[in-house]
Amino acid sequence: MQDAVYTAWIVSQGEELLTGQTLDTNAHHLAAALTGAGLRVLGASTAGDDEAAIAKALADAARNGDVVVCTGGLGPTSDDHTAAAAAAAFGSALRLDAASLAAIEGYYAAAARPMPAPNRKQAMIPETATALPNAHGTAPGFVMQAGAATLYCLPGPPREMRPMLVEAVLPDIARRLSPRPPRRHFFRTLGAGESALQAALAGLIPELGRIELGFRAKIPEVELKLVGPPDVPDADWEIAVGRLRAALGKDCFSEDEHRGLGAVVGDLLLARKETLAIAESCTGGLVTDVCVREPGSSRWFERSWTTYSNVAKTEELGVPAELIAAHGAVSEPVVLAMAEGARARSGANWGVATSGVAGPAGGTPEKPVGTVCFAVAGPGVSRARTLRAPGRARDAIRKASAEIAIDMLRRQLLRM
Amino acid sequence: MQDAVYTAWIVSQGEELLTGQTLDTNAHHLAAALTGAGLRVLGASTAGDDEAAIAKALADAARNGDVVVCTGGLGPTSDDHTAAAAAAAFGSALRLDAASLAAIEGYYAAAARPMPAPNRKQAMIPETATALPNAHGTAPGFVMQAGAATLYCLPGPPREMRPMLVEAVLPDIARRLSPRPPRRHFFRTLGAGESALQAALAGLIPELGRIELGFRAKIPEVELKLVGPPDVPDADWEIAVGRLRAALGKDCFSEDEHRGLGAVVGDLLLARKETLAIAESCTGGLVTDVCVREPGSSRWFERSWTTYSNVAKTEELGVPAELIAAHGAVSEPVVLAMAEGARARSGANWGVATSGVAGPAGGTPEKPVGTVCFAVAGPGVSRARTLRAPGRARDAIRKASAEIAIDMLRRQLLRM
Repeated sequence: MQDAVYTAWIVSQGEELLTGQTLDTNAHHLAAALTGAGLRVLGASTAGDDEAAIAKALADAARNGDVVVCTGGLGPTSDDHTAAAAAAAFGSALRLDAASLAAIEGYYAAAARPMPAPNRKQAMIPETATALPNAHGTAPGFVMQAGAATLYCLPGPPREMRPMLVEAVLPDIARRLSPRPPRRHFFRTLGAGESALQAALAGLIPELGRIELGFRAKIPEVELKLVGPPDVPDADWEIAVGRLRAALGKDCFSEDEHRGLGAVVGDLLLARKETLAIAESCTGGLVTDVCVREPGSSRWFERSWTTYSNVAKTEELGVPAELIAAHGAVSEPVVLAMAEGARARSGANWGVATSGVAGPAGGTPEKPVGTVCFAVAGPGVSRARTLRAPGRARDAIRKASAEIAIDMLRRQLLRM
Repeated sequence: MQDAVYTAWIVSQGEELLTGQTLDTNAHHLAAALTGAGLRVLGASTAGDDEAAIAKALADAARNGDVVVCTGGLGPTSDDHTAAAAAAAFGSALRLDAASLAAIEGYYAAAARPMPAPNRKQAMIPETATALPNAHGTAPGFVMQAGAATLYCLPGPPREMRPMLVEAVLPDIARRLSPRPPRRHFFRTLGAGESALQAALAGLIPELGRIELGFRAKIPEVELKLVGPPDVPDADWEIAVGRLRAALGKDCFSEDEHRGLGAVVGDLLLARKETLAIAESCTGGLVTDVCVREPGSSRWFERSWTTYSNVAKTEELGVPAELIAAHGAVSEPVVLAMAEGARARSGANWGVATSGVAGPAGGTPEKPVGTVCFAVAGPGVSRARTLRAPGRARDAIRKASAEIAIDMLRRQLLRM
């Protein structure tokens, strides 16, 4: 059994998911939790408030996965059909679960409110099911055999579903199947696009054997992920990780999925006991946000300006008006003067600046929308560069530019 | 045909959706858009990076809906399989689409970069499909007959998918099916929570008849939506809209789903020919972003500071060091001095400022994490307030505070 990879299928129930009223965060949360527990999630489906549609979704899911987790449709109202659908799909009838009814009555007693009559319906579960208690709401969940699969039905509200998943479902899956989690390693990169990385790493991939390499573009970042079966020997795994690390070089800024550029640059600055000041224009606050979103950033982030008008660039950062007149606000000389001004005015060790044409208006043939100038100024350092991202929307240009600016500082700090 | 309700099915493609790495916002966005266009979305499914699984999901969807919209899997890499799966599911082969290849080459030419070889794959679409151009990325989409259904395949990145949906897919659906969209009216509000609004408007709801009132919390905003069948008479519709408008009062800042606080405040300032300067602390760039993300904001947004350190508050904004020593940086006197300093230093008509404890560290019994002070300074105006949002995460506190700060200015401008 050690090599078996168990599979899972996720079913989300709720008409509000199909009308676009509610974003389905449950499927996302379940996908991460089941993957982390060592299951391979093969698919997910969503059914509206219709018993037959739910029954079909559950039956399809049970044919495809060893484990099915369904959320939603366990409420007290007439549009909650999941228990009846599960019973119908797997040849069972509904029964009143006495312990669940007592728990629902107890929930209302604790709130000193009478139990509304419709809530009795929530104690009805399929005959062949075992109730899963809900400490955070009235609807119990249940677990039952569904053909060859095990079906878990949980209430839809995340604050009820999430603790039940941790307290009841994951331990039950571990008892029944003993799945072994896959090996995973993340590389967050900035510098090369998804296609270029794919081309550069093409030679590496066939050699990886049972280890798979995945790409995800989150412009301007590309995240790479190595995934392998749990029994890949440590030596093989380390070779694969090492090869990828060497191939990516400085483009990889983090090997932790949850650790972003701000945290990485903050630690580089802290190690050097240095501080940062930022002068923004088109990015308007977003470079600052990359820093300030990190807890503890007050230890290395000093201050910032968004000098949107030319007058502000001159008054706040000391950029000479003649320099702006000669080269335009979106130019390497001006963005360098902004970075140097930010550094000089604040006393911070480093200054980073951006100035660009985020659009939709303001582009010229020479400086089209998407043209952004970046600068880093520091001890003995004064660097500027210009990038163009044609065809992108204002928001996308601004967000990508904010990360690129901080990455420029990261690369500079690695050189020192 | 006028009363026929056309049906739709949504397919999301991407292994990252099944491993929990990525939250599927595309299905949510499509569900809202297709519902808004007058289709009934019957279900949604997610397939991983496996051609057979995608083909099965597409075939199932095409048996169930008049329209199928699939997102993802059109990238250049070896784990992108949607075009091949669509061809396999509906008895077609892949062909090279010359116009799409030219567009991809043009995209790289505009960026003055050579086209990586793998991108040629993106111009391969099913023989029976028509390409849908992508102005925001390299992967074209396509539309094809899929049994009795029409299948639209779009790239996964939301900034590419969303404009293609509006520019190509929805108009094509309207041409083919002429669905009758429901009547809808949006109210974006800030001020009261979802439960309070629900309670306050409870009396209104039964009177609305066939018109439904929906709530969606996007903290700190709550979005309300009236939805009615297409044949609700204009007079009834106007009564419902008017009642809700009157009940919401100044809490409603926009009746346009896509028009946010920055745009609303910008227009109020433009009408008065006035300008704004911002002084931030814990929100670090996010108040500025609420403004600068609006195209044309240079006409009313002057400049901003993130004065994260106390020294920066004094040096940049002239906040007396003694004031900070006496009251602390998170206090109404200090945040007022910041707003007044921003106004005085910039010459802008209005100053807005924030200072708070975003956490996770830095809280005290008197000023726990989630305490944020806000100020607005303007001609004859000097107002401060303090809010507490206990139990929220750093990001949530910072984002909510940024909108609350700009909303405080909006309310002030409405009073003048």
